[in-house]
Amino acid sequence: MNIDGTSHRSIWLSKNGKDIEVIDQTLLPHKFEVASLKCLNDAVKAIANMQVRGAPLVGVTAAYGVYLAMREEQSDVFLSYAYETLLNTRPTAINLKWALDRMVAGLLRVNVSSRVNDSLSIAESIAIEETENCKNIGIVGTKIIREISDLKHGGTVNILTHCNAGWLATVDWGTALAPIYAAFNSGVSVHVWVDETRPRNQGASLTAWELSKHGVDNTVVVDNAGGHLMQHGMVDLCIVGCDRATSTGDVCNKIGTYHKALAAFDNEIPFYVALPHSTIDWTISDGIAEIPIEQRDKKEVTEMSGLDSEGVLRTVSLVSPGQAALNYAFDVTPNRFISGLITERGICMASEQGLLDLYPENKLV
Amino acid sequence: MNIDGTSHRSIWLSKNGKDIEVIDQTLLPHKFEVASLKCLNDAVKAIANMQVRGAPLVGVTAAYGVYLAMREEQSDVFLSYAYETLLNTRPTAINLKWALDRMVAGLLRVNVSSRVNDSLSIAESIAIEETENCKNIGIVGTKIIREISDLKHGGTVNILTHCNAGWLATVDWGTALAPIYAAFNSGVSVHVWVDETRPRNQGASLTAWELSKHGVDNTVVVDNAGGHLMQHGMVDLCIVGCDRATSTGDVCNKIGTYHKALAAFDNEIPFYVALPHSTIDWTISDGIAEIPIEQRDKKEVTEMSGLDSEGVLRTVSLVSPGQAALNYAFDVTPNRFISGLITERGICMASEQGLLDLYPENKLV
Repeated sequence: MNIDGTSHRSIWLSKNGKDIEVIDQTLLPHKFEVASLKCLNDAVKAIANMQVRGAPLVGVTAAYGVYLAMREEQSDVFLSYAYETLLNTRPTAINLKWALDRMVAGLLRVNVSSRVNDSLSIAESIAIEETENCKNIGIVGTKIIREISDLKHGGTVNILTHCNAGWLATVDWGTALAPIYAAFNSGVSVHVWVDETRPRNQGASLTAWELSKHGVDNTVVVDNAGGHLMQHGMVDLCIVGCDRATSTGDVCNKIGTYHKALAAFDNEIPFYVALPHSTIDWTISDGIAEIPIEQRDKKEVTEMSGLDSEGVLRTVSLVSPGQAALNYAFDVTPNRFISGLITERGICMASEQGLLDLYPENKLV
Repeated sequence: MNIDGTSHRSIWLSKNGKDIEVIDQTLLPHKFEVASLKCLNDAVKAIANMQVRGAPLVGVTAAYGVYLAMREEQSDVFLSYAYETLLNTRPTAINLKWALDRMVAGLLRVNVSSRVNDSLSIAESIAIEETENCKNIGIVGTKIIREISDLKHGGTVNILTHCNAGWLATVDWGTALAPIYAAFNSGVSVHVWVDETRPRNQGASLTAWELSKHGVDNTVVVDNAGGHLMQHGMVDLCIVGCDRATSTGDVCNKIGTYHKALAAFDNEIPFYVALPHSTIDWTISDGIAEIPIEQRDKKEVTEMSGLDSEGVLRTVSLVSPGQAALNYAFDVTPNRFISGLITERGICMASEQGLLDLYPENKLV
């Protein structure tokens, strides 16, 4: 998507053809800085410290991380070490394992001597495929927006989203935001309600930033506001991303997604989840019982960072010293609250049958 | 309730017997400062700037505000001016109108020359009555907590609350927190999940502070987390306060309350609303359609204040310059999601019949 008219991606091979470059997302929206990843450890830190985040981008970064590891050492032992180290960075998004499994499966087949080139080329194909998947999610999902626009006789379609599932969370286009960009690019009038998404504020700092930079009208609200907006007819549609979906269509996404699904359900507003197939975990069927939920540092809850009046980036404490706090990063929305899943192959019911109709190759014989 | 072992109220007559003193709640939890209100304008500013907040405390402050006005001038014209000015400070909490109506009704009956003394004595009785009401809400509501404690064989009862409906929101005891203080004081093991309550963070800055100062175990979570906690059996009970209830038991409270009610309903967790009768608006029956929802400055959403590492209170911006944001302060929870209303007279269904059974004097003949 565009930053002030110039096309951009979230991760790319550097001009020297060797290193990997990413946008340091911990500094947005206040500073736009590119971070260079030169070794396995750089990739591990970029994921763990959330310089890159978003399930699809985490997967692609891990794939490039294996390439960076192979530049250091091409042995099976080091490949296995890289796999484990990258896998352990974050527990919830399944795209991480999906990408790493593909890298290892590809590299175990080839000679040690060609692992540098091959790891780069597999990582590049994963990045290209994921970009295509997101683009197709946009094409598929934009129909939903266009239908609402037609029902409103071309009036603005108000879409609520939670967290950031835009191009910053993927390589390009995004998942939840891909249909919105596709609609906007084709001239449909859209306005996005952006949940700020505490504790890390990915909505206010990333989604609002990337939508504005591409020119899409948007308004930040606190996470508490969605239900009220829905009760008053101010939301036509909800679209969110996903960190892991079960084979039955339960969806794990940023903490608070479940509240929005409940409010949409109560107000009969369509609630869609957009995801590429790399986000589906075919091995589990009960999201609440089976998906591991990351717990993060309580400081993300008790402190906030932002620019002070002199433009200095500062962290301030919101609570008394020693205050207890707990920080779960994701929650699970049961499939019964989901109107449909938007994937690169089409829209389906959030159910086992729905998913298998789109992905018949995953049927157990 | 106690601050480190010493009993305290949120508003009181100063030692000189003339002025009104309040805790400046905009500075908590970082600084404990008392603000002195010496004239009508001081009271108006204290309410409008949220040095005092919480529906019952706003009502009591407005009552004292009329007394401060009468110290300036005792005429009917100035009484009417004081009424209007105080009424227009904040639109949602009905306690404001309730207290002002009582003040004016009492003062119109008496001679201008006795209005200073009489206004003080009516304001004092309102403050005493509201304290009694809150104390009784505690006695009534603590039975619910004790029953859960018994079912758990004395195990800790985990209670989720939203915003601040503690003694800081009233004169003493609180509404939602009164049953919790009563249970704690009588030896029941309780733990409170405190929603931080964006945008103004009354949970993290006021509820966590007052619970901790009284010795009640509590944990701050972001507003997004409640549903996840409920899905995982970590919440036994929700209790929230209220800014205005309709005659049919719809409840208007801090924005985000509705989400928690939906999540409690979906997880079959009791969801109670605690309120004194001063919070009931008998003139309306449809909360979503009829209760005016205050919209506040968008800066409350786009900026945050806290202590920096040197202990300096600072405000930081969370978004790009010029970012659009909207700030609704309250939402409405329809009565069908409410397990019961806890009032000073007992617990009732959130319905017209339930409320009229407790307050038969409000039956239309």
